[in-house]
Amino acid sequence: MDDDVPLVNPEVNFDHLSLIDEQRRKRKWDGAIVTNPNCTTAVLTLSLKPIAASFGLKSVVMSSMQAASGAGYPGVASLDIIDNIIPFICEEEEKVQRETRKILGQVERSADFRVSASCHRVPVIDGHTEAVFVETEKPAAPEDVAKSMAEFKAEPQKLMLPTAPEQPVVVRSEQDRPQPRFDRSEGKGMSVVVGRIRTDPVFDGIKYAAIGHNMVRGAAGCAVLIAESMKSQGYI
Amino acid sequence: MDDDVPLVNPEVNFDHLSLIDEQRRKRKWDGAIVTNPNCTTAVLTLSLKPIAASFGLKSVVMSSMQAASGAGYPGVASLDIIDNIIPFICEEEEKVQRETRKILGQVERSADFRVSASCHRVPVIDGHTEAVFVETEKPAAPEDVAKSMAEFKAEPQKLMLPTAPEQPVVVRSEQDRPQPRFDRSEGKGMSVVVGRIRTDPVFDGIKYAAIGHNMVRGAAGCAVLIAESMKSQGYI
Amino acid sequence: MDDDVPLVNPEVNFDHLSLIDEQRRKRKWDGAIVTNPNCTTAVLTLSLKPIAASFGLKSVVMSSMQAASGAGYPGVASLDIIDNIIPFICEEEEKVQRETRKILGQVERSADFRVSASCHRVPVIDGHTEAVFVETEKPAAPEDVAKSMAEFKAEPQKLMLPTAPEQPVVVRSEQDRPQPRFDRSEGKGMSVVVGRIRTDPVFDGIKYAAIGHNMVRGAAGCAVLIAESMKSQGYI
Amino acid sequence: MDDDVPLVNPEVNFDHLSLIDEQRRKRKWDGAIVTNPNCTTAVLTLSLKPIAASFGLKSVVMSSMQAASGAGYPGVASLDIIDNIIPFICEEEEKVQRETRKILGQVERSADFRVSASCHRVPVIDGHTEAVFVETEKPAAPEDVAKSMAEFKAEPQKLMLPTAPEQPVVVRSEQDRPQPRFDRSEGKGMSVVVGRIRTDPVFDGIKYAAIGHNMVRGAAGCAVLIAESMKSQGYI
Repeated sequence: MDDDVPLVNPEVNFDHLSLIDEQRRKRKWDGAIVTNPNCTTAVLTLSLKPIAASFGLKSVVMSSMQAASGAGYPGVASLDIIDNIIPFICEEEEKVQRETRKILGQVERSADFRVSASCHRVPVIDGHTEAVFVETEKPAAPEDVAKSMAEFKAEPQKLMLPTAPEQPVVVRSEQDRPQPRFDRSEGKGMSVVVGRIRTDPVFDGIKYAAIGHNMVRGAAGCAVLIAESMKSQGYI
Repeated sequence: MDDDVPLVNPEVNFDHLSLIDEQRRKRKWDGAIVTNPNCTTAVLTLSLKPIAASFGLKSVVMSSMQAASGAGYPGVASLDIIDNIIPFICEEEEKVQRETRKILGQVERSADFRVSASCHRVPVIDGHTEAVFVETEKPAAPEDVAKSMAEFKAEPQKLMLPTAPEQPVVVRSEQDRPQPRFDRSEGKGMSVVVGRIRTDPVFDGIKYAAIGHNMVRGAAGCAVLIAESMKSQGYI
Repeated sequence: MDDDVPLVNPEVNFDHLSLIDEQRRKRKWDGAIVTNPNCTTAVLTLSLKPIAASFGLKSVVMSSMQAASGAGYPGVASLDIIDNIIPFICEEEEKVQRETRKILGQVERSADFRVSASCHRVPVIDGHTEAVFVETEKPAAPEDVAKSMAEFKAEPQKLMLPTAPEQPVVVRSEQDRPQPRFDRSEGKGMSVVVGRIRTDPVFDGIKYAAIGHNMVRGAAGCAVLIAESMKSQGYI
Repeated sequence: MDDDVPLVNPEVNFDHLSLIDEQRRKRKWDGAIVTNPNCTTAVLTLSLKPIAASFGLKSVVMSSMQAASGAGYPGVASLDIIDNIIPFICEEEEKVQRETRKILGQVERSADFRVSASCHRVPVIDGHTEAVFVETEKPAAPEDVAKSMAEFKAEPQKLMLPTAPEQPVVVRSEQDRPQPRFDRSEGKGMSVVVGRIRTDPVFDGIKYAAIGHNMVRGAAGCAVLIAESMKSQGYI
């Protein structure tokens, strides 16, 4: 979380890679340290980016239902999770709250919207599900939010980076989607699938469900896309 | 949801039973219609009552992880829920939003705090888990909220009604509790178990996890406790 | 189960298709009725075929652990199968016992080895797992059985039918395989995966674990392969 | 497995405790080593005992579906067992095969019937399910086997030992029982529940399903009952 170490989710804050220049100057090295977001943050920030761009963010409340694979191997004991929910993942909420504001912020400083996360482990193999409640700066009708998400493209798509999914945010219109077992492999695991975009009565904003593959968008796939992004900019 | 039909969660709004008098007058009958809250609402409102009483409620955001038994039998197909989450339960969010304000309101009218719910079905047999984010009217320190919950008693306890749990809200201090498999039978399924009470950075309020047995507190047990409450007041 | 209606698992009893000729003569029609084996039988008979061919069969005891998708949709209720086993599937054992002898028998009559099945439903989405105990006619060393299975090819492979898997029986040497989640899609779901081939102390025969995809080898995929087989023989 | 160390499942081979006398003589000590059967063996041998007593045993084939708690804590990783079966438990089959013959044998030597086990881990929290196929010495009609099981009592029942279940083997007549989630706590976890007793076409014997609580009958409860048995005989 150092100021000169970019934390990058390529479709969200590609421009933060420019911190590498400063990092090299300051640290007097040729290499570069770039970090991957936490898996829950990766899914959340990608779904929030089109909203941030079109409507602005004031507050984000997020309740996650995280897959067992997010805990690594052997990770969660089956005795702890069959027929059960664990409403705690060590340091996860703090990371999500901090990283979301950093990734969706400026190169030089975190955004100042507020974020509150509640993180839960569920008996699902792969795919983090997130219930997201958003207070926007400008009025945001669900259909406009859906449109902004469905049409969203960023540098990785424009540069046609090999690991970039054609559609970073896929919007489903069925009332009972997205579901992790059926949607986690969308875009080879690099897309985030969003559904149930509806008006939120607390924030006069919107709420929605998002799912992303924690092992791909949330881990290895994201790391590869970062490397491809760095290469496209001549950093490696 | 008729104005003269009480919707009762006995520890929360025992006084709403007085609507029976009006109902009898208006409808010219001797019987009485009293309704049970929705199972998710029953758990939520019981956990909110001590907060409402001590700190006041301005906004409530709730994300549920609901057990399969809540859908009745045969209910959720195993093919739909093994290794999966379904982020939709028909009419559930509307019910929770409406009923919570009615139960925590005055006899004659619903409370005017705002409620937003997002409801999800998870691969758990019994016990609804709820992530709750609360904006309070007065500042609410987590330890004070915990105290107000742990000490909370209401008419069913004072009247020592047979089905009333000794402690309606049980507060756990472990960082990874409550969990449905281990906590759903607390108070023979009539208690709500709360944990992880912590400061909420969005609302400057608090957030916590709550679990209750959807088949007991959320259904049959609550109905019996309503009957016992009615009997204690001479309505039956 | 009529005598002139072939019950066909193409790699096992391709020659039974010749019953169509008799069926057409007897029933005076141009069409043909050919039936698909039960999903559990499809997996079992494919794994038994190389043993039958090389060592002969005297007795087969099979205990299945069958996936929820075998019951169709909505099929098994989640309340019945989460954290549970159901040791009964209607008519299944009778079908497996009868069909296995028919498929591994001659065109004109069932084989006379004995078969006993015990069928159980388990909390698995796709893929039937079978524990098989076999009394062979000739001595059968585990390594020889493994070799006969791994090298097994039949008409569908020789004819290079589109749906025929390159290797109908895949033998795994790891001590904890096959496992349904990891092995059910072998050969696009058309292969049966076998492991743990070892000496059986009751029969002085062998025992092993087999897994096959009940929705592919055990249903739609098998039906397509039957159609391709019929076409290759000019029946359609 | 030493010859002078009794391996005791109290209802099955209470008389093996007399080995303690020999053990003390030989080893010149006052204490005593008595061992608990493996959890799978404990369930199997208790269900077999009435059959052994009334009909004699020639062969036993057993395929287990074992709960995750049998592996201790943390034991089986959730990533390994959700939507999956593991057809291997280290050393388990060898133990079941050896211990079953020892427990159902004479004090001085193991029985000489044959046993073959195939052991599988399934996504169940508690309760081992076993599919058992038995060749008996005398003809055994299912209804007679059921009667012998339902009426079975042994020394722990006659001595009214505190941990002894009133009925060691409970026979269910429903066609889809026993099931681990519903039957594992029978007799406070000390009873074995048996169902689906039917004729076996391979052995001209019988087959059935049995369930027992691996953590009670298969572990702690059995150990306590052994201690109570020893005390009743003056060994401690």
